[in-house]
Amino acid sequence: MKDWPPSKRSRHHYCWWHEYSTRWGDNDMYGHVNHIIYFSMFDTVVNYFLIKNAGFDPVISEYIGVTPDSRCCYYESIGYPATVDVGIIVKKIGNSSITYEIGVFKKDSETTCAVGHFVHVYVNRNNQNKVVSIPKKIAEACRKITI
Amino acid sequence: MKDWPPSKRSRHHYCWWHEYSTRWGDNDMYGHVNHIIYFSMFDTVVNYFLIKNAGFDPVISEYIGVTPDSRCCYYESIGYPATVDVGIIVKKIGNSSITYEIGVFKKDSETTCAVGHFVHVYVNRNNQNKVVSIPKKIAEACRKITI
Amino acid sequence: MKDWPPSKRSRHHYCWWHEYSTRWGDNDMYGHVNHIIYFSMFDTVVNYFLIKNAGFDPVISEYIGVTPDSRCCYYESIGYPATVDVGIIVKKIGNSSITYEIGVFKKDSETTCAVGHFVHVYVNRNNQNKVVSIPKKIAEACRKITI
Amino acid sequence: MKDWPPSKRSRHHYCWWHEYSTRWGDNDMYGHVNHIIYFSMFDTVVNYFLIKNAGFDPVISEYIGVTPDSRCCYYESIGYPATVDVGIIVKKIGNSSITYEIGVFKKDSETTCAVGHFVHVYVNRNNQNKVVSIPKKIAEACRKITI
Repeated sequence: MKDWPPSKRSRHHYCWWHEYSTRWGDNDMYGHVNHIIYFSMFDTVVNYFLIKNAGFDPVISEYIGVTPDSRCCYYESIGYPATVDVGIIVKKIGNSSITYEIGVFKKDSETTCAVGHFVHVYVNRNNQNKVVSIPKKIAEACRKITI
Repeated sequence: MKDWPPSKRSRHHYCWWHEYSTRWGDNDMYGHVNHIIYFSMFDTVVNYFLIKNAGFDPVISEYIGVTPDSRCCYYESIGYPATVDVGIIVKKIGNSSITYEIGVFKKDSETTCAVGHFVHVYVNRNNQNKVVSIPKKIAEACRKITI
Repeated sequence: MKDWPPSKRSRHHYCWWHEYSTRWGDNDMYGHVNHIIYFSMFDTVVNYFLIKNAGFDPVISEYIGVTPDSRCCYYESIGYPATVDVGIIVKKIGNSSITYEIGVFKKDSETTCAVGHFVHVYVNRNNQNKVVSIPKKIAEACRKITI
Repeated sequence: MKDWPPSKRSRHHYCWWHEYSTRWGDNDMYGHVNHIIYFSMFDTVVNYFLIKNAGFDPVISEYIGVTPDSRCCYYESIGYPATVDVGIIVKKIGNSSITYEIGVFKKDSETTCAVGHFVHVYVNRNNQNKVVSIPKKIAEACRKITI
């Protein structure tokens, strides 16, 4: 845990990218995107990476990634309407778990407005107490974006 | 109300377009985008139209549009991950209210997977019981997409 | 459709009740609960009725209710924090579909702040294009709250 | 950071309590409450504590609490429908920031199913780059639940 909270990151720290657009209801009473939405970015972009690069199908896959730990540090607020760039890297691949770092960038910024830490542990879909090895295609895809 | 529920619509029925991307958490237990998300599309796309075309600023505007009536009919399900095209038209401009129709289209489809009906009534931001006339720039922008 | 939009309703119009509490993020930039949240009330309360009264299990049931049509009329805004009373009745039971009306009431009010219309069509979980008859226990439970 | 990730906690670790009920859409494709919903619990319960015990009004207050850091560890999943008990304590009061720990408990359990870490920094509502001292009534209320 000596690497958390992180310092601000630049774009070259991340390996794989996807866009994420904010919605009307993401803004809370204070006129900025509520902090829970950043965790939706992590889910949405990490799973999209796995779908595109590891053939993952969240509806029928035998093994699923559940979340034991998620964190986010916020440096600058964003609002609706906006589209942000979300970059990911894999920080650690264990036997059953994968740890991602996620950077959120405004379109015109080289440094993060938020940095996330997000872990997946693989379990059997029909017996979610049973931890399993990381599926092979997922491990392969993740190795390619590991720092 | 004789025009509700609507028949399926084709793309040429709509005048102004924006994309909307689904998120991991939009899918419910049945593996399809939950019906409440379509209403987020209406909020997100109609307000974006007003921001881009009528100079509307939802954080500081003196007048705001509140919703007395919203409806959606669903013809085909969508899922995460997906990006859909959302088209809008104005069906009716009154003294204080604007009625929009919204069509949701899969990328490869010419007919709607959902059609929405969405009304804004303009009120004073600081006294939301006071109905006001539609702000002039908003009325002008909406007239251009009225059928 | 001659019954939509509805007039305001009083509490004795509804047969089965559940509470629903608002969350921080339900309030939008205008400081009131966003209209999409009311549709979450319909999902949450109608399915809870089926779980409690018809033994419905949304995770494993062979048949599921999907939504072809949902509507809401709004008479008064609500905010966070608040707990509202949500009443339901069944307006129509067909071969495959059930139409609910939902009334949302502030704790100290005898008349609705919102009225919803919500339809479930039953389909096979594994072949969602296949419409099926309403499951027997669900039909029985719904008949008891039909007007 | 030596206290994160935390060990599981028991109920007597927390000082102030509120209930939180899950909604249909909180369950994701895997049939369990999505991890982002726990962060909604933190927002919803901590702000409710401030509203009830420090006279905080999120719509008109001159000073607002924004979030620079939020984290959650998950030990057991929860689902819809369920009502959980959410306990909070204050771990640290600085000049401008308050750090909360939040414990989420199933109704029949003495140990946490999730533990959260949640920080508010106080800023001027109309100039959110300007950090301010913690408002006096908020500091007083938080001191009463500080460990």
